[in-house]
Amino acid sequence: MKISINRQYFIEQLNHCLKAISPRTTLPILNGIKMEVKEESLVLTGSDSEISIEITIPTEIDNEEILEIEEPGTVVLSGRFFVDIIKKLSGDFVALETNDQFQTKITASQSEFNLSGNDPDQYPLLPEVNDEESVVLPSAVLKTIITQTNFAVSLSETRPVLTGINWQFSEDGIKFTATDSHRLALRKLQGEQFNMENMNAIIPGKSLTELNKIITDSDEEVEIHFSQNQVLFSYGNMRFISRLLEGNYPDTSRLFPENYETKVTVKNSEFYHAIDRVSLLAREGGNNVIRMTVENGSVALSSNSPEVGTVHEAINTGKVEGEDLKISFNSKYMMDALKAINDDEVSIEFFGTMRPFTLEAAESDEVVQLILPIRTY
Amino acid sequence: MKISINRQYFIEQLNHCLKAISPRTTLPILNGIKMEVKEESLVLTGSDSEISIEITIPTEIDNEEILEIEEPGTVVLSGRFFVDIIKKLSGDFVALETNDQFQTKITASQSEFNLSGNDPDQYPLLPEVNDEESVVLPSAVLKTIITQTNFAVSLSETRPVLTGINWQFSEDGIKFTATDSHRLALRKLQGEQFNMENMNAIIPGKSLTELNKIITDSDEEVEIHFSQNQVLFSYGNMRFISRLLEGNYPDTSRLFPENYETKVTVKNSEFYHAIDRVSLLAREGGNNVIRMTVENGSVALSSNSPEVGTVHEAINTGKVEGEDLKISFNSKYMMDALKAINDDEVSIEFFGTMRPFTLEAAESDEVVQLILPIRTY
Repeated sequence: MKISINRQYFIEQLNHCLKAISPRTTLPILNGIKMEVKEESLVLTGSDSEISIEITIPTEIDNEEILEIEEPGTVVLSGRFFVDIIKKLSGDFVALETNDQFQTKITASQSEFNLSGNDPDQYPLLPEVNDEESVVLPSAVLKTIITQTNFAVSLSETRPVLTGINWQFSEDGIKFTATDSHRLALRKLQGEQFNMENMNAIIPGKSLTELNKIITDSDEEVEIHFSQNQVLFSYGNMRFISRLLEGNYPDTSRLFPENYETKVTVKNSEFYHAIDRVSLLAREGGNNVIRMTVENGSVALSSNSPEVGTVHEAINTGKVEGEDLKISFNSKYMMDALKAINDDEVSIEFFGTMRPFTLEAAESDEVVQLILPIRTY
Repeated sequence: MKISINRQYFIEQLNHCLKAISPRTTLPILNGIKMEVKEESLVLTGSDSEISIEITIPTEIDNEEILEIEEPGTVVLSGRFFVDIIKKLSGDFVALETNDQFQTKITASQSEFNLSGNDPDQYPLLPEVNDEESVVLPSAVLKTIITQTNFAVSLSETRPVLTGINWQFSEDGIKFTATDSHRLALRKLQGEQFNMENMNAIIPGKSLTELNKIITDSDEEVEIHFSQNQVLFSYGNMRFISRLLEGNYPDTSRLFPENYETKVTVKNSEFYHAIDRVSLLAREGGNNVIRMTVENGSVALSSNSPEVGTVHEAINTGKVEGEDLKISFNSKYMMDALKAINDDEVSIEFFGTMRPFTLEAAESDEVVQLILPIRTY
């Protein structure tokens, strides 16, 4: 292969590709980026066998030449190191030329690198994903969905299905669920157009974290295709493929209680910062447990740590309905849940000291966050 | 004690104080910040017994009330944790009140913290530094001096004096020297006014690193006082005290050779970036050694790493005097030295393949950097 490519554009695409590359891969060739020069394009591939990212670079973008192809060919070059070189070179364009032994010459300005490359035949084939049926979301919507659920996936491999987000399709739309069994995040997306034959898939949280770093907060469409074991996100010049988690996701629909005993409506940001302050002491005491008291229509937060001290916060702007309450919970879970609710006002419904409580936006049930309390006495 | 203090101003001063506090202190009370409320001021002290920082906060700054004192008194409060609380509170002012058992109530807006404090009588006394004789430098000059030398101090405790910077006073001015025995940084400050009776002191590199984070790039004066074992930097409302290193600093004056065999003059930034690129491969190969070749009036850099590849850089804008040369050196030392030379053009003088070489600005000998080459064949 022999090409010349716009250096800044190349760096951006390589950085996307790097997101699929893990330094802890068991297959050494997966440390590399595969570069396949065709007649009219350059295809970059990075993969850690869980996630694969494939980017197609055309010769022109908006009538501006990005890529000049003198000779097609394919090579695999050591990922991070290769990207570091391209970044540190000077000049607008960089030239790449590979010989029969995959030795690759990189030249720009007064610099010349000669790198050992790898045989692309040793690079694993990407999984194929059936392109027939798909659901389409604007990338900004997909970003919000990931942000509102992904934090709640389990970090433990004890129950592997809980490390993923459950996408559950029905006639009403899609339900996205994540839980680590201490708290649960549920996002609903209404709309008949999202029905995909009652598909039910579990996408690894890690894959969605990486996808979220690449897609932008815009109207650009993401086409999502599912096969038996894989999901493909097709976005601009990029194909992002992740394996799906096998197994059955637990039925979480019964977890949501009805008929609250106590309901508190608070200003999201004010409540968040109060929790943040009270949790300072909870953290110093070695755990994140703080206490909330609802009494005579007023709400207070407190925490104490025997060696360090005590803290007390009065919540002024709350509206209280129902019975008095004393409840303890993990402050981190509460802060995560508040961040995931895109609204100035949050309603928290309690069903007694020992039962899970729920958070929703005051005006919408698009997002429901559920948290298990902690028994402290 | 009982005070109310401007929260933002308090945070800034506490952050300065924290720079003296090490989490690895052997004396637990040194994890805390000592707060001494006098009739007209609040004095904050932080110390790790190597460095001590004392900050005096007045009641008013530019006719604006910063501090309101209701009752003097003294307490020691756990450092980082206390500062975190002050940062996360809301409101412009925060109130502090300490009782006889050093229990301290912190209130702002709807928040109330009650922290266990410590008896200030258990806090060690700061070393006394004789204030009589001093040298005065603008803080911007002191910052430059630290930046141009401090990187070259030794990180190993094998020869403790080499972990500090030698300040050598004479009738001509001050010489600042740092060396880890592989490279040396020398900065000269000319001027009779800097003569302090041929004083010779070794200030720990770590202390100067912390000082450098606090002082700003301005004309504000820093008064520097030396005692037998301590140095005091007096800067605005702050007293920064560091212990001095004991022992004799090696005589480095004989290290500087005369009559170069080869002299190369290069553009600083261009040469720096070329070294940076070539060192990418040197680093990948497990060391930082790169080779420089001067031949027929042209300069080139190269490096190779058997598994990875080779790199070659031609340096275009150099001026060459003297003999041809092949020399190898640590690229990191070279990059550190180039950064320390505040000039677009740098002269490098070589005295043969196996002898130390020197870098200076083309137009000034205020800074001299010396590097030992590496034998590679």
